[in-house]
Amino acid sequence: MRLRNKPWAKDFMEEHPDILVLEPEQVKEGWHQLFGNNNPIHVEVGTGKGQFVIGMAKANPDVNYIGIEHFDNVMVSALEKAIEADKPSNLRLLRANGNKLVDIFEKGEIDRLYLNFSDPWPKTRHAKRRLTHESFLNLYETVLIPGGEVHFKTDNRLLFEYSLVSMSDYGMKLRYVSLDLHVEMPEDNIMTEYEEKFSAKGQPIYRLESQFDNR
Amino acid sequence: MRLRNKPWAKDFMEEHPDILVLEPEQVKEGWHQLFGNNNPIHVEVGTGKGQFVIGMAKANPDVNYIGIEHFDNVMVSALEKAIEADKPSNLRLLRANGNKLVDIFEKGEIDRLYLNFSDPWPKTRHAKRRLTHESFLNLYETVLIPGGEVHFKTDNRLLFEYSLVSMSDYGMKLRYVSLDLHVEMPEDNIMTEYEEKFSAKGQPIYRLESQFDNR
Repeated sequence: MRLRNKPWAKDFMEEHPDILVLEPEQVKEGWHQLFGNNNPIHVEVGTGKGQFVIGMAKANPDVNYIGIEHFDNVMVSALEKAIEADKPSNLRLLRANGNKLVDIFEKGEIDRLYLNFSDPWPKTRHAKRRLTHESFLNLYETVLIPGGEVHFKTDNRLLFEYSLVSMSDYGMKLRYVSLDLHVEMPEDNIMTEYEEKFSAKGQPIYRLESQFDNR
Repeated sequence: MRLRNKPWAKDFMEEHPDILVLEPEQVKEGWHQLFGNNNPIHVEVGTGKGQFVIGMAKANPDVNYIGIEHFDNVMVSALEKAIEADKPSNLRLLRANGNKLVDIFEKGEIDRLYLNFSDPWPKTRHAKRRLTHESFLNLYETVLIPGGEVHFKTDNRLLFEYSLVSMSDYGMKLRYVSLDLHVEMPEDNIMTEYEEKFSAKGQPIYRLESQFDNR
């Protein structure tokens, strides 16, 4: 993704505190209160330009969605889309790094976690940065409910192979695997920007649902 | 696979008891004795025309290989190939059904199990016949050593997806996954007849190694 410098990004983000939470650590343990209901909370880590999380929020009003994105210059695109979509009340965007999850959420505070087209970090020495590395799985297990699920899509074969083994080794169980998602496209599939681009080229999209132990 | 009727099959098989074991139940608990050594025993269930198991036996003299095939008309092709290969002393062929494994082998008598291009049984009502259904996994776990491995190759996407979930659900751990084996072909990969045919067409070959609990 091209990261153009957007000097106005910070000001723009500060103007929309009703949808973009600038200091998410301060909401820890209070997310249900912030949404004003006890609906399940689904979090996308690496939300990019927001098409997936905003589409999900519009399609599923009885679920609360949180999109987390590290880069300001990408986050402003998600924010623009959220404003165009009239700021769904069941959606929040957070400017944060995925490794801060345990500072943002209390143990068991979220119900499901989405990873979509995460950076593959193809070099072996960068494996620790992959969002399905065991150190991240450990964070996810902490903030998810017992038996919580991770739903993961990517076009990157090597990252998907790595993730299957990493999750299995961690003790997670695979509940669903598709090695060519768009052949039997589920009706409720919401595409990300990347997904539209890659599947249009005929590349297979890989998808899995995996589950932590029901402690 | 076309199954031509071969009326001479039975006589032909009976002529080569040194390589084809006609009553494998009688050898149960005696396979190491039959091979005359304590080398590990690797078993291919559904050995077809035998190219894989015979190639493996020739490439790895310190491992004992057993190819199991249910259909006489296919088994005779494997037998012909084994004779052409001068009947490797670390190879045996068995005419049996995969669901008879526990009648043929004692608990923990074998070290590894191979499944190659097994019948996908695509209809849901036939799922029980797939060689990665939990009822088969249970047989494999019985005859394998603790922590024994299953190595599985197929060109069938739906069977591979099913198998990933089935093995994970059974409690097996994935140790290796390739979703396009022939892109980075391992040097020691021995191709089956099907594998040659399908990979020549450019179809991806899927491969996994999974492991039972080290009880």
